[in-house]
Amino acid sequence: MDKIYDVIIIGAGPAGITAGVYAARKGMDLIVLTGDIGGQAAWSGDIENYTGYQFVTGSELTAKFEEHMKKYSIPVKEQEEVTGIDKDGNFFAVSTLKGKYKARTVIVSSGKRSRELNVPGEEEFKNKGLTYCATCDGPLFSGKDVAIIGGGNSALDAALQLIKIAGKIFIINIEPELKGDAIMREKVLKSDKVTVLNKTRITAILGEAFVKSIKVKKDEEEKEISVQGIFVEIGLIPNSGFTGLLDKNKQGEIEVNCANETSVPGIFAAGDVTNVPEKQIIVAAGEGAKAALGAFKYISKSREGG
Amino acid sequence: MDKIYDVIIIGAGPAGITAGVYAARKGMDLIVLTGDIGGQAAWSGDIENYTGYQFVTGSELTAKFEEHMKKYSIPVKEQEEVTGIDKDGNFFAVSTLKGKYKARTVIVSSGKRSRELNVPGEEEFKNKGLTYCATCDGPLFSGKDVAIIGGGNSALDAALQLIKIAGKIFIINIEPELKGDAIMREKVLKSDKVTVLNKTRITAILGEAFVKSIKVKKDEEEKEISVQGIFVEIGLIPNSGFTGLLDKNKQGEIEVNCANETSVPGIFAAGDVTNVPEKQIIVAAGEGAKAALGAFKYISKSREGG
Repeated sequence: MDKIYDVIIIGAGPAGITAGVYAARKGMDLIVLTGDIGGQAAWSGDIENYTGYQFVTGSELTAKFEEHMKKYSIPVKEQEEVTGIDKDGNFFAVSTLKGKYKARTVIVSSGKRSRELNVPGEEEFKNKGLTYCATCDGPLFSGKDVAIIGGGNSALDAALQLIKIAGKIFIINIEPELKGDAIMREKVLKSDKVTVLNKTRITAILGEAFVKSIKVKKDEEEKEISVQGIFVEIGLIPNSGFTGLLDKNKQGEIEVNCANETSVPGIFAAGDVTNVPEKQIIVAAGEGAKAALGAFKYISKSREGG
Repeated sequence: MDKIYDVIIIGAGPAGITAGVYAARKGMDLIVLTGDIGGQAAWSGDIENYTGYQFVTGSELTAKFEEHMKKYSIPVKEQEEVTGIDKDGNFFAVSTLKGKYKARTVIVSSGKRSRELNVPGEEEFKNKGLTYCATCDGPLFSGKDVAIIGGGNSALDAALQLIKIAGKIFIINIEPELKGDAIMREKVLKSDKVTVLNKTRITAILGEAFVKSIKVKKDEEEKEISVQGIFVEIGLIPNSGFTGLLDKNKQGEIEVNCANETSVPGIFAAGDVTNVPEKQIIVAAGEGAKAALGAFKYISKSREGG
């Protein structure tokens, strides 16, 4: 607790890693506190829009990010769950389940996690056929019939991964039609494995040791569909619970300006945890760079002043 | 002139290329008008902070960008110098030296060009020992003594490239000390080839068929230094001369908000041509993505409305 870092970076997705690389290049004394490395990017299937990489998987891109961090010998503490950030005189104290860290600036890049369904059976069948990560768990459902809950890009991404693996695929979409990129929609709709049920919502998950079926409802009509796997892709919730100090919007996203400054001078935020509307790896990376350069300037200025 | 594009992208540096990839993925009908491909990135030596790439040269990254564009069959017109953008009813007309193009939206990502010295001899010795691009022309100065004019990151980048190639290297820096990343400064100062002259400015370029020397001045003292090469790295000017429609700051940079919207609805801007303070490849790429997604939303909204 005696050591004072120039910057503590919370989270190691594309935003946090890029912030780390930039801070290290500026000669800042830093530490990265994170649960895992890669963030949401690690969960993505094929990534086709990270400019420069024509075609990489989420885990490949994450491996590249890790390599990049190692090159700069950036100290990363994994399995560190941050529980709070407090002002401590001119510094900030970041608490985790394991200890406390002190720094002149903080960059919050803790990303988002999957939203849950809130239907009967959800708790019971987690990891017993019900999953929130098609990339991680898709391969377990070889030849099996599955349902994807959702209708945006992440549902389409899950479908594209499962087309190569699963049997029948039902997309349970609450909206009147699928959203997401045209190029992905076309690929999904071309597959004869896929049945899209629009204006339809899931109402229950049934099974014994494992998932056996789901109940869905369209208008007032309810029916049961036999599936052995369920992939939940209905959006994400920001990991901002520990940022009591900071202004957030109704969705819980940390409010930042164009320079990635939060409502507290010296605390910056970047990536999916913020209110920046575009949730894209390349955007998060750019924001991470801006946050690190902002933290660097903040320290330079306070040193001039004092 | 009859065809109406969804979006015209002006410039093909990291911002323009990323915008192109995102627009293509959204199914937009687009064209890229540009002088060259790669922009300032193509001129950079070693790039170490484009997250995911541990170590690439500017030309390698540019080649990756080109590949990425080809994958999406993005139509690019090279050698197209844009001269103006005008309102044309609900559309925009973009004029080049060769013709006119019409579109619903425009993304300006035309980057910056090198600032000139404005000293006697500059016009005479251009490409006769005087250059604005260490990456392009450095290899021509093998074993020769050279001067780098400037003291920021681009001067340091030029120095790092020339240390491997040139004889003596004089860095002529008008400021009291070198600026730029600590990690680059250290590498440059470690080389015994390098002499840094701080608080010093260049006053003239002398030679016959080629550069033979420069005159420099520190306080009131002027002296002559024998060099066969001069690399000008004193900053950049935005390529915004053709954007009379748009609000710009004093430096001529196009003013954008966080969503990369300019003062004219339907025209977006991204990358080094804008007033976004951080001029970094990864930031430019992120801004390009945001501009393309903004243009896509703008078109979706106007179609809903009309």
